[in-house]
Amino acid sequence: MNKFSSPAVGTVAVTDKYFAPRIAANHTATIPASLKFSRDTGRIEAFKLKWKKGMPKEPHIFWDSDVAKVVEGMAYDIVLNPGDRKLAKELDKIVALIVSAQQPDGYLNTHFTVVEPENRFKWLNSHHELYCCGHLIEAAVAHFEATGKRDFLDCMCRYADYLASVFGRGKGQKRGYPGHEEIELALVKLASVTGEKRYFKLAQYFIEERGRKPNYYVKNEGAHEGWLSNIQAEATVRERKEAVGHSVRMMYLACGMADVASLTDDAELLDRCRDIFRSVSQKRMFITGGIGSTRHGEAFEHDYKLDNLDAYAESCAAMGLVWFAQRMHNITGDGAYVDVLERALYNGVIAGISLSGDGFFYRNPLRSSVDSAFERERVKWFGCSCCPTNFCRFLPQIGSFAWSEGEGEVRLNIPLASEYRSGGRAIKVSGGYPYKGDVSVSFLEGGEFTFSFRVPGWCRNFSVRVGGKPFFAMPESGYVRITRKWRKGEKIAISLDMPVEVMRANPAVEADAGRVAIQRGPLVYALESVDNGPLLQNVRIDADAPMRVVKAKDLPEGTLAISGSAVERTVASDALYTTEKPRLRKRAFTAIPYALWQNRGPAEMQVWSLEA
Amino acid sequence: MNKFSSPAVGTVAVTDKYFAPRIAANHTATIPASLKFSRDTGRIEAFKLKWKKGMPKEPHIFWDSDVAKVVEGMAYDIVLNPGDRKLAKELDKIVALIVSAQQPDGYLNTHFTVVEPENRFKWLNSHHELYCCGHLIEAAVAHFEATGKRDFLDCMCRYADYLASVFGRGKGQKRGYPGHEEIELALVKLASVTGEKRYFKLAQYFIEERGRKPNYYVKNEGAHEGWLSNIQAEATVRERKEAVGHSVRMMYLACGMADVASLTDDAELLDRCRDIFRSVSQKRMFITGGIGSTRHGEAFEHDYKLDNLDAYAESCAAMGLVWFAQRMHNITGDGAYVDVLERALYNGVIAGISLSGDGFFYRNPLRSSVDSAFERERVKWFGCSCCPTNFCRFLPQIGSFAWSEGEGEVRLNIPLASEYRSGGRAIKVSGGYPYKGDVSVSFLEGGEFTFSFRVPGWCRNFSVRVGGKPFFAMPESGYVRITRKWRKGEKIAISLDMPVEVMRANPAVEADAGRVAIQRGPLVYALESVDNGPLLQNVRIDADAPMRVVKAKDLPEGTLAISGSAVERTVASDALYTTEKPRLRKRAFTAIPYALWQNRGPAEMQVWSLEA
Repeated sequence: MNKFSSPAVGTVAVTDKYFAPRIAANHTATIPASLKFSRDTGRIEAFKLKWKKGMPKEPHIFWDSDVAKVVEGMAYDIVLNPGDRKLAKELDKIVALIVSAQQPDGYLNTHFTVVEPENRFKWLNSHHELYCCGHLIEAAVAHFEATGKRDFLDCMCRYADYLASVFGRGKGQKRGYPGHEEIELALVKLASVTGEKRYFKLAQYFIEERGRKPNYYVKNEGAHEGWLSNIQAEATVRERKEAVGHSVRMMYLACGMADVASLTDDAELLDRCRDIFRSVSQKRMFITGGIGSTRHGEAFEHDYKLDNLDAYAESCAAMGLVWFAQRMHNITGDGAYVDVLERALYNGVIAGISLSGDGFFYRNPLRSSVDSAFERERVKWFGCSCCPTNFCRFLPQIGSFAWSEGEGEVRLNIPLASEYRSGGRAIKVSGGYPYKGDVSVSFLEGGEFTFSFRVPGWCRNFSVRVGGKPFFAMPESGYVRITRKWRKGEKIAISLDMPVEVMRANPAVEADAGRVAIQRGPLVYALESVDNGPLLQNVRIDADAPMRVVKAKDLPEGTLAISGSAVERTVASDALYTTEKPRLRKRAFTAIPYALWQNRGPAEMQVWSLEA
Repeated sequence: MNKFSSPAVGTVAVTDKYFAPRIAANHTATIPASLKFSRDTGRIEAFKLKWKKGMPKEPHIFWDSDVAKVVEGMAYDIVLNPGDRKLAKELDKIVALIVSAQQPDGYLNTHFTVVEPENRFKWLNSHHELYCCGHLIEAAVAHFEATGKRDFLDCMCRYADYLASVFGRGKGQKRGYPGHEEIELALVKLASVTGEKRYFKLAQYFIEERGRKPNYYVKNEGAHEGWLSNIQAEATVRERKEAVGHSVRMMYLACGMADVASLTDDAELLDRCRDIFRSVSQKRMFITGGIGSTRHGEAFEHDYKLDNLDAYAESCAAMGLVWFAQRMHNITGDGAYVDVLERALYNGVIAGISLSGDGFFYRNPLRSSVDSAFERERVKWFGCSCCPTNFCRFLPQIGSFAWSEGEGEVRLNIPLASEYRSGGRAIKVSGGYPYKGDVSVSFLEGGEFTFSFRVPGWCRNFSVRVGGKPFFAMPESGYVRITRKWRKGEKIAISLDMPVEVMRANPAVEADAGRVAIQRGPLVYALESVDNGPLLQNVRIDADAPMRVVKAKDLPEGTLAISGSAVERTVASDALYTTEKPRLRKRAFTAIPYALWQNRGPAEMQVWSLEA
């Protein structure tokens, strides 16, 4: 069983300068934009089931998932913005439309109902059918929790009941499972909110059946053996020790595995989750928390293969890592998982969305130059628009990542400015995190319980004052725990040393050989041509020279940049290859938080710079 | 008109230690292996035209070209090995088989005759039909020149006559041209050897028609606009200022353009050849002379995009650059073209074949590591086996690259040990080139003419003694010219300074930023894990420390390696990212000639190393 749980959306109000504006923009820009594009492209209309062959806007196999994710985001968003009656009404309208698309037997999928009804559950390996269902379930759960209305939830229960009749090891049942994982974690949520164990059992079946021999996809769908590892079906979850294949799929599967492992106290399965987490975070993760290093299959590559320019690092994959790490922390209580969660959250995820809230990166490379093969500017929408719609539902959850709840314990995972209110407890955190390490915790209500806070893995020195007096504490598993009867108005002052750190990669990472990255607190920094001019590959950072923390130019108030010394080779000839002895010119450099790059126009960008 | 021409195969006997063993191995290993594979795969049998639907070994669209290239190589090879009667017989037998496959109208193509006769000349853009014809013509010319027998030559004249009736701007004619260039340069050869201008005119038509609007391929073959630049059909040759698309195609087209420009004294077309050459050699060529940096379309990329690990640098493309540079030198007499020819010849081409003569690289990256996406070992044959068969015909030509003949002039382009004999002139070059810069030239026959030799672009100091006395000379266009009545036995001693050079790339080449390569004379050097251990990315070369020329280990006698000082970062932790301050350990490194890598077992390899 979990040691901790994450507070429901609405329990935590985020008030910092880094995320709060993003959460606000989700309400004013991200969700409205995703709604508009979902409408314009026919994704919402699709639920009317009126499409006929030859008509435009043929419902695509993943369209339902996009709408579901926006709906899930809207449900969270009306909790954070209870005054927005218009949005609440719109939400209910879309929900009613979705519910109306349910077939008599419980089935619900726009593509397979109108485009190819004869192929229901025929191409599980590639056609996202159960994946769409999973997102609809997550949306239904969020809608129920936000509104108390059961229509969508009941609808999805009917669908899940139908699935339980179709899939399983019983006579006449299909021994299949989803090609794109997602429904596993969704069914666990459905079981939890309804109390119905049969949904959990279906989740368990999907997870345990995965990858068994003879392979279902090969046998029944003619799938190519080479495709199996991309969808984590080349082995069972019990055999899995590494993160392989499509990175979003891998993370969603790992989330489901962690859920099942926790709820069944399955130590072996939990060890496999640990293996996967270690494989990701110690061998296959960019310093930004981005994962899935190659565009070929949007997939993990072998250990230490982490090309900066070609990096795929899909926004959704970084979100998946956050969700996986959140679960692993809640199961184990270990702050090491939050170290990774924080890295992905502050860097790899947030880089995927513009400050304005309506521009998106699908992939998040760590180097952008004239050589970039892909997008250098965030765009408004994608044909495969998983990332924008994922932001709709991800952003409102940020407060839930920052805090956890345990038995007699409230814990602050990430000390961002926020207010936690639940069960008579009310705690306010203020300070300038992630730019400043001084954090003040105020108990707005009194009460006896354990308050714990994480000392981030990046922090080498910290001090604590409780009620103005020095408090000496050893973090355990990354957390300082203080148990007492808190007086209303009592304060804890936490001071985390936050120097500029020069980071280097493992020598096995060829892409980063001879290079350094700059990090301060949880933020990974990057050079952008806006501040440094072009041809960033020639900027060689003097890692031994002092670096200064300065105000960032043309970025949100409070954003801190880092400046320091570098050298650059100057050349006389424009020859392609030369024997000319290099002259090195001293120059300055300025780095901004990686996540904020390309918010000041198209730019070259570089996380790993050569070392002088 | 050309200022120079290249001596026919047989005029020059190569006797050096670098190429002579390769030319010998062509006779004993490369040609026999290519013959064997051509036979085993059905390529030769295909000319019997007995294949029927459903049978194995369906003749492929490019098979004829493979056989043609082996035949061309065999023709050269019997000139170099006049004693090998068996090979000469085999050659005549294959030639007879090829000739027997000619159709009554003159057409000759195994694939289109038996597999899809209804599609003759229907898919010019993609189906290699005229490309195959081009190679057959080259083979026929070589066979005629080697044996004096006209059967194959006459056969190809009939085919060319048929083509001239099909293609052209006349009424009822197709306005098409080859999707893979090659036939242009071949038709020029055919015209030259037969004296028939009409073949030259057909070459000219193919070259000038290329890329005209409306585009033939788009209009008649439904070709995609995006495909056109890969086959150099997005613009006419008059509009072309850069090397684009498939690199082998680009080089073969450029060869044809240069031939036509020279024979018609077309200054404009020659300027376009200069533009293409400049684009290749100053912006889009690896230091090895490898070209075509991406596997996507085996193509040129934008300026300065030269990734070492992902480099495509096909062996055939480097050969194409040699042939193009050979033509540009012969037209202009400028040694700058031979500088590039020499770079490609000694490095990028020869890397493509094993010392044993029967192992081949298709692509020639400048870095090989665990991250290599492609082959790390030379293989015996390829499905698309253009490279092995190209070596069959390329290797015997090496002497013809090293020497040129002009009006009253014999010139030594590359001072490799060799003997030139033609028209009563006989000149012997000895010395240890490319490992040693001391070259001795002996006139085996007396006579009055200009002897010229190139002072390589890499050479900054040289001295000459004629008949034992210092001779002071300024090279013009890279050549020292000495005109006199040579006495039999007279000698010239040339001494070319050949220090170890540390090379750096243009700052715009991101892949080489902060890196150095080592060159000595014409040879580019590379680190191999055999000498240096694995993880070569961490070896940082001390470019200021002295480097020594030493004997190479387990490579042919006389091969010189370079050793020097380097540093390497040592780390205590195995973390993926660390704040650990780097400790640098001093170490040595050894570099061997790049072209010889992977002749001592599978190995990591690196041309561009980090600079300490």
